[in-house]
Amino acid sequence: MLPAMRILVTGGAGMIGRKLAERLARDGALGDTPITALELIDVVPPEVPAGAEFPVGWQVADVSAPGIAATLVEGRADVVFHLAAIPSGGAEANLEGGYRANLDGTRNLLEAIRMLDGYVPRVVFSSTIAVFGAPFPDVIPDDFHLTPLTSYGSQKAMGELLLTDLTRRGFIDGVAIRLPTICVRPGTPNAAASGFFSNIVREPLVGRETVLPVSEDVRHPVASPRAAVDYLVHAATLDGARLGDRRALTMPGLSVTVAEQIDALRELAGDRAVALIRREHDPVIADIVAGWPRAFATDRAAELGFHGEATFAEILRVHVEDELGGVVPGAG
Amino acid sequence: MLPAMRILVTGGAGMIGRKLAERLARDGALGDTPITALELIDVVPPEVPAGAEFPVGWQVADVSAPGIAATLVEGRADVVFHLAAIPSGGAEANLEGGYRANLDGTRNLLEAIRMLDGYVPRVVFSSTIAVFGAPFPDVIPDDFHLTPLTSYGSQKAMGELLLTDLTRRGFIDGVAIRLPTICVRPGTPNAAASGFFSNIVREPLVGRETVLPVSEDVRHPVASPRAAVDYLVHAATLDGARLGDRRALTMPGLSVTVAEQIDALRELAGDRAVALIRREHDPVIADIVAGWPRAFATDRAAELGFHGEATFAEILRVHVEDELGGVVPGAG
Repeated sequence: MLPAMRILVTGGAGMIGRKLAERLARDGALGDTPITALELIDVVPPEVPAGAEFPVGWQVADVSAPGIAATLVEGRADVVFHLAAIPSGGAEANLEGGYRANLDGTRNLLEAIRMLDGYVPRVVFSSTIAVFGAPFPDVIPDDFHLTPLTSYGSQKAMGELLLTDLTRRGFIDGVAIRLPTICVRPGTPNAAASGFFSNIVREPLVGRETVLPVSEDVRHPVASPRAAVDYLVHAATLDGARLGDRRALTMPGLSVTVAEQIDALRELAGDRAVALIRREHDPVIADIVAGWPRAFATDRAAELGFHGEATFAEILRVHVEDELGGVVPGAG
Repeated sequence: MLPAMRILVTGGAGMIGRKLAERLARDGALGDTPITALELIDVVPPEVPAGAEFPVGWQVADVSAPGIAATLVEGRADVVFHLAAIPSGGAEANLEGGYRANLDGTRNLLEAIRMLDGYVPRVVFSSTIAVFGAPFPDVIPDDFHLTPLTSYGSQKAMGELLLTDLTRRGFIDGVAIRLPTICVRPGTPNAAASGFFSNIVREPLVGRETVLPVSEDVRHPVASPRAAVDYLVHAATLDGARLGDRRALTMPGLSVTVAEQIDALRELAGDRAVALIRREHDPVIADIVAGWPRAFATDRAAELGFHGEATFAEILRVHVEDELGGVVPGAG
């Protein structure tokens, strides 16, 4: 029998889910194993990636709704990427919705897997650096304690604990990866407090004004969407034995200041682009961001072969390649 | 209006719950406030403590069963002690039962409180040092990371996260206290791997043989049942503002070796008692215990006024006073 690699993705219509599906379609394999099927799940219709040489199915389904998870896992996918979640702002605004999506959704999925005899898939769970909370040291070590200060971070930390316990008990083979802030996030500016990290480069690159609400010495760990997808794919193929009983890993992020972001933007697109950044100090956002992590020492992830970007110029290049067709509009 | 202090205890029939009820009956007050009512809840009928000068009610109810929690909290107790749990061995043997009792039970209770407008009681949650897992440093700091290696520890860690989040959101005023191993545990020897810490002193004190399955240099943090009740009572009256957003506290435990336990036993009850300890090395238990914590630096708890025993002689004295009517049988 040829090796099969059937993949299930929850949250397949989200920004990362969509890029993961495109990557899988492009690679045609996960690790050394050719992909034989991909199923995308989300509460809105996911896009089927172009050019896949394997069947791609999709379903509109809410894994947090009772009974749904069992139907999703009955195909016994070899790898399950569990990305479905309500993000930080949403989980703060809607307490019940956040716990339902982020805790019940995860629990339902893992429980449905547990109920299937002899089925122990690799489950890659997208967690977040928001499982950590201030006060922070300048550089946060891998074994920093879990002290989330948001409902989203709390729910993801609970998901990590459940995934780790069910892995130890032999019901799943879980890996939780804690993603840093994704930058450059494609799309349009949103109301998230972290939005400016992406806005201040994405908008000027296409000739639009943008607002910088914090000072230029703000420092924060970021990774490109492409790096996030790299992390997911690497987590899917990692030897679980190397993780032992500590199944949650903080992912590499480039620790960058706003000033360094702006320098990289100037280098790429000139002063005209930088001039589109309007400084408008927002004390509320500045206050929120003051409590955020500045840098992580992600030694475990590095040892396990996870690598992020080394410069912000690299992150900008990824954005130009993946979102702007390789061309900087108006540059030159 | 006179200040009211109505108290609800889940797990009121358990060893700690029973001792807490006795203590409350004896004190007649919690902090400076006279107790006006006590309600004990458990899945088996709790004992009403003797001598209470306030009404004591009880109910046989399972807080993890759907709909029950709402009926328990509708009396809007000022302080809720949430002790109901399936212990470590039980949660390992019965995965579903453990998650139901230890996670769903806690969530149901906290959610039922959240649903009542304007009701923000102090909730004291009995957690455990099993939220931590090996490898450990010799002395474990307050900010050691959460790495449970049992389902029980995982469930309690999830409960801590939920309690902390709902406190931050203003729905409850929660304090989670991580109890060390309780010693001397009254009653009869049980199958728990930690049982020998109590067995090796409790049994010889009443002239019965007992087995020591590990070497005498095993070191572990312990506190008496009386100290555990002290911690609960102190946690109930603590100023929540002093805790900030870190609502889980590791409780003091006396870091004691088995040899020191035996020395204290000899001091109290003589060589005849010590001779009742039969050394029978059990590699399985020795292996389990090798992964356990040896000592905690509980600085935060100390600053907040939690104090445990300073010597094992003190722990033995508490046992003799509270369980043996102040008399060492056969001593002298």
